[in-house]
Formats: sequence, C-alpha cells, structure tokens
Amino acid sequence: MAANLAAGCIFCKIIRGEIPSAKILETATTFAFLDIEPLSEGHALVIPKFHAEKMHQLPDEFLADAMPVAKRVAAALGAENYNVLQNNGKLAHQAVPHVHFHVIPKPSTDKGLIIDWPAQKADSEQLKELARSLKL
Amino acid sequence: MAANLAAGCIFCKIIRGEIPSAKILETATTFAFLDIEPLSEGHALVIPKFHAEKMHQLPDEFLADAMPVAKRVAAALGAENYNVLQNNGKLAHQAVPHVHFHVIPKPSTDKGLIIDWPAQKADSEQLKELARSLKL
Repeated sequence: MAANLAAGCIFCKIIRGEIPSAKILETATTFAFLDIEPLSEGHALVIPKFHAEKMHQLPDEFLADAMPVAKRVAAALGAENYNVLQNNGKLAHQAVPHVHFHVIPKPSTDKGLIIDWPAQKADSEQLKELARSLKL
Repeated sequence: MAANLAAGCIFCKIIRGEIPSAKILETATTFAFLDIEPLSEGHALVIPKFHAEKMHQLPDEFLADAMPVAKRVAAALGAENYNVLQNNGKLAHQAVPHVHFHVIPKPSTDKGLIIDWPAQKADSEQLKELARSLKL
C-alpha cells in the first residue's frame, strides 16, 4: 500500500528524509528511528508511513506492520524489560499528531516510562453488560 | 496459524473459556475483553492466542493482528483520548506473563493511564551511532 504523507507534519518529514533522524529500519509501510528526547537509552519510535493522528484512523495494512517492526526493534535493543506505548490525543500525552508507537527500554525504576496504575476492581456483570453494548 | 496456549496461564484460560470474561471480540489469532481491574471505563485487553511472555517472542502472524483488533476496540469505545500500552517484564509493570495490549480510554487527567515523562534531550550524533550499532 502506498505511503500517504502530509506536507507540514514533522514525522512525515522524517519519513521523507527532509529532517534527519537516527533511523533504525524501514519497511514499505513503516519507519523506525530513535527518539531525540528519550526516556531511556534506546527509546525508539515506530511510525506508519501514513499520516493519521490517531491509531483508529489508520488503515489495517499499516497497523499490521507496526508490531512486527516494533518486535524487531525490541529484539535489537535487547532490553529485558520494556514498554510499548501509543498515545492518542493531548490528554493522553500525544505530542506529535502522527501515530507513533514508543518502544521504551525500562532498565531501572527511575529510568524509562514511569506509570501510575490506579486500577479499581470492576463488577463482572456490569463489565459483561458494557461488552455487549459495544458496537463491533 | 493455530493458537498455542499454555495450561496454567490465566489469559490462556480466558481464551479457552475456562475462566469467564467480558469478551468484546475474537479473531482466529486474537481475543479481546474488558479488564476486570480497569483504569477507566472501557479499559480493554487485546491478547494473542499464543502463549508468550514478551512481545518480541510472538510470531509475526499474531503481532500483525493485534493492532487491527485494537483499532476496532478503540473505535467501538469511541474515546477521543486513549492509550495503547503493552508492558514487558515486571520492572515495566507487566502483571500477567502473557502478552497483552491495554486499550485505555483517557476521559480526564485523573482517570485512565497516568504517565510521568522524564525525557532528556539526546545528542543527535550519539543517537545515530547507537542506531548504527543495533543489529537488525
């Protein structure tokens, strides 16, 4: 499937080579490079060669290639612990409005992604009702 | 590709239906359901029907289906802001040792995934050297 890039997008410019990057690998639909503002050494970005702001707006062909590329990146980094993160919307910490998957090594508690996990136990019957209500 | 499940794994048991879940959808290689300990309403898990602890250990066929399924889940949830997160290793907040992708709506700053982002500006030449050193 052909790449679909936007003129003014910083990540589209990186894909086109108009802005230099520490490129790791590239496939027909995906580009991977090191983040210039890493959370830990090796923090990489995997981006589809299709300009869309949010994950659910991407064609499946581009989504299907993203995780196999992230796998190759993670294996090359060799980190025992790591996070894969993709943020959608400013409230969810998305900084650049072009879908990007972070691959972030977690070498220690104070380096890499720092997460707070305020989970609450849900009622299983309410969850089943919610699951049934989703249009899929 | 055939599912490859483990006898004692809680997520493999959910896939097999031995443990009930609030199932959202299922494909030949992927199973999606609502998290029983959600960070926000609609917090879902997308899991490959292949028992592997970490993302880079999964066959590409299973990885390729995960994001298209996550896309359908995110679209059905209808959240404007959301995070997709996959943790590898206890240090990186992995609780169940079977690969799972969280799809977490982010309705407000205090609900959903809470992230701290202690990024540091990197030297671009050092990044390029690191990118060249990766075996890919």
